Amino acid sequence: MATLHDISTPALVLDSTRLLANCQFMAGRAAQLGIRLRPHMKTAKSADVARVATAGQFGGITVSTLAEAEYFFSHGYEDITLAVGFLPERLPRALALARLGAKLKVITDNVPVARLLADAGLAVLIEIDCGDHRAGVDPGGDELLAIGRELRGALAGVLTHGGHSYRCPNMEEIKAVARAERDAAVQAADRLRDAGIWCETVSIGSTPTCTHAEDFAGCTEMRPGVYMLGDLDQVGLESLPLDRVACTVLTSVIGVYPAQNKLIVDAGGLALSKDTSAQRHEQHIGYGVVCDIDNKPIRRAVMVEGAATGSVTKPLHAWVFAASQEHGQVTSDDPLPFEKITVGTRLRITPNHICMTAAAHPGYYVVEGGRQVVGQWGRINGWGAFQG
Amino acid sequence: MATLHDISTPALVLDSTRLLANCQFMAGRAAQLGIRLRPHMKTAKSADVARVATAGQFGGITVSTLAEAEYFFSHGYEDITLAVGFLPERLPRALALARLGAKLKVITDNVPVARLLADAGLAVLIEIDCGDHRAGVDPGGDELLAIGRELRGALAGVLTHGGHSYRCPNMEEIKAVARAERDAAVQAADRLRDAGIWCETVSIGSTPTCTHAEDFAGCTEMRPGVYMLGDLDQVGLESLPLDRVACTVLTSVIGVYPAQNKLIVDAGGLALSKDTSAQRHEQHIGYGVVCDIDNKPIRRAVMVEGAATGSVTKPLHAWVFAASQEHGQVTSDDPLPFEKITVGTRLRITPNHICMTAAAHPGYYVVEGGRQVVGQWGRINGWGAFQG
Repeated sequence: MATLHDISTPALVLDSTRLLANCQFMAGRAAQLGIRLRPHMKTAKSADVARVATAGQFGGITVSTLAEAEYFFSHGYEDITLAVGFLPERLPRALALARLGAKLKVITDNVPVARLLADAGLAVLIEIDCGDHRAGVDPGGDELLAIGRELRGALAGVLTHGGHSYRCPNMEEIKAVARAERDAAVQAADRLRDAGIWCETVSIGSTPTCTHAEDFAGCTEMRPGVYMLGDLDQVGLESLPLDRVACTVLTSVIGVYPAQNKLIVDAGGLALSKDTSAQRHEQHIGYGVVCDIDNKPIRRAVMVEGAATGSVTKPLHAWVFAASQEHGQVTSDDPLPFEKITVGTRLRITPNHICMTAAAHPGYYVVEGGRQVVGQWGRINGWGAFQG
Repeated sequence: MATLHDISTPALVLDSTRLLANCQFMAGRAAQLGIRLRPHMKTAKSADVARVATAGQFGGITVSTLAEAEYFFSHGYEDITLAVGFLPERLPRALALARLGAKLKVITDNVPVARLLADAGLAVLIEIDCGDHRAGVDPGGDELLAIGRELRGALAGVLTHGGHSYRCPNMEEIKAVARAERDAAVQAADRLRDAGIWCETVSIGSTPTCTHAEDFAGCTEMRPGVYMLGDLDQVGLESLPLDRVACTVLTSVIGVYPAQNKLIVDAGGLALSKDTSAQRHEQHIGYGVVCDIDNKPIRRAVMVEGAATGSVTKPLHAWVFAASQEHGQVTSDDPLPFEKITVGTRLRITPNHICMTAAAHPGYYVVEGGRQVVGQWGRINGWGAFQG
């Protein structure tokens, strides 16, 4: 099979050794917290990745589109929660999946939608706002009970997402968001139960909160997703160290400009995405950090003052400082090692936000730490309706 | 056939009436400037759009990937310039296309690559830096002539792109970049000719410079691309008015939050892209401007002081202020018209940068100004090598 030297660039490379480590880490967190793990597949969008993420777990997954639900069901996953506010016009497609045997659960925070869903035969979770203020009802408000009463027997539980963990400046605040997730979800479930409305599932989670939570007592499941692959933003949030980031973009140098201390690579705004999320953690992130084909820092020999040998190597940090459609422009604070870089040299880029980056690619070239490609895993991109 | 009420969201909508107007505008510019139009298809990535863009022109097109070259050749386009620095390992794929009859031209700014290309049988353009400082050689430098000598009979001409037109704060500076494009390209061509090296093609262009240039004397062709579809960034650059933007994202409301003066729609970071380019032109752009299903401003009745009737309607500007993977959050400075918006209401979003936005979608639902869908046009996304 091919190596990373042979495949066409730009391309997604998935290190299955790191993927496994990340999945084992989160499985350990679920065990430690005494909670079921329902991995969110919106990031990886791959049945092969889901196989690793659900190993040893109860088998349920989370998705963000009906296209994902259909794809994962066709790959043997039956217990699926579609964790984006449900649109009633999608009922025929959702019911078709349910008729085939899917245990599909959908979410809503809207009274009229709950009324429509009550008789549809799908299980419904009520979306709770735990402080992120994106979607969801107030766990202490009247709307929660109004939706619960509309849903009656269709109510499966409550669900919340501490998306504001991404805006936390430090670990203490991430832990506080984890507490807010738990408190909001448990409060909502308790209020429904107190009102005589059956509420089984109490679902919480984001990668930062599931990584750092101290206690999810009262919750039944957690739904992190980005942890499987990782990215620079998750590194900045301390969800995982850089050496566990499992997914990178393989790219080829297409321009060499020593006078500008610059390279151009064939991974631009489309192959990397224009997401800039990790720029808030560190200077010189741009659209991604650039390493060599083995995903190691680009090294060069530099004089280190006082070193016995007079010269040691230090890692050279390079980054994509500008991204147009098919061009990524790479630079560094130190001179780039032009003596070993030509047009055609292959590099690997760790992106800011892998959910956005991966979506531009049809699938993963899988490696096991080295350059040998041991497999190709497809992805379910898009929304699945267009017939061109 | 379907209407904009029936198709699944999120989806790209292409108004063919506006597309035609934009293509006729740029055809008129080419005629006025006395230059051939080689439309850049990297934005639209559609043979159907290329048909409109090349109508009445000489038939040549520009592309940014080999996947596009292969696709457009299979749709009858033979004269194709691949205007991204050529990677020699792509030679087998490029030569396969040439053997089928494609008049493929590639570009380089690199002496070793020129040496490899000299005997390959592809026509080569030398990439010139006209001040954008992305790629290209100095039109006055020695490297230009060195590459010209390496290429010998393979040299087809010179090519430059005034990408710095996108960074201009006003029209005068865009016109200055257009002059810089022309001057650099013509200077490079003249220097090659003076050195006894045949140089036929002098190729320039970006949508802002081709829209506003006063004189492209000495140039043989221009290669704008974004003008066909348009976007908020091009509106800010005065390449076209907002009512000529031809491509929007159709979306459905999935959450309604009157207390926060907010909607959530099902077009998020994937359907819109995380590009923020138009934010520099105006406040309250976010990830796109939100209109109703007819692409008209969301209106509401407001009291206008001194108006004879006491009340007239004024347009309501709404925008996507936050975009997560599948959620777009919409707000406005004025209260949103919640009396006519429910979960399921359809809206249309004009994005910042259509090259990035369109790439997330498999194709276009075509309308002719109204809601009736008159066709579905596919796109060639990605890089075309992955076999999952």
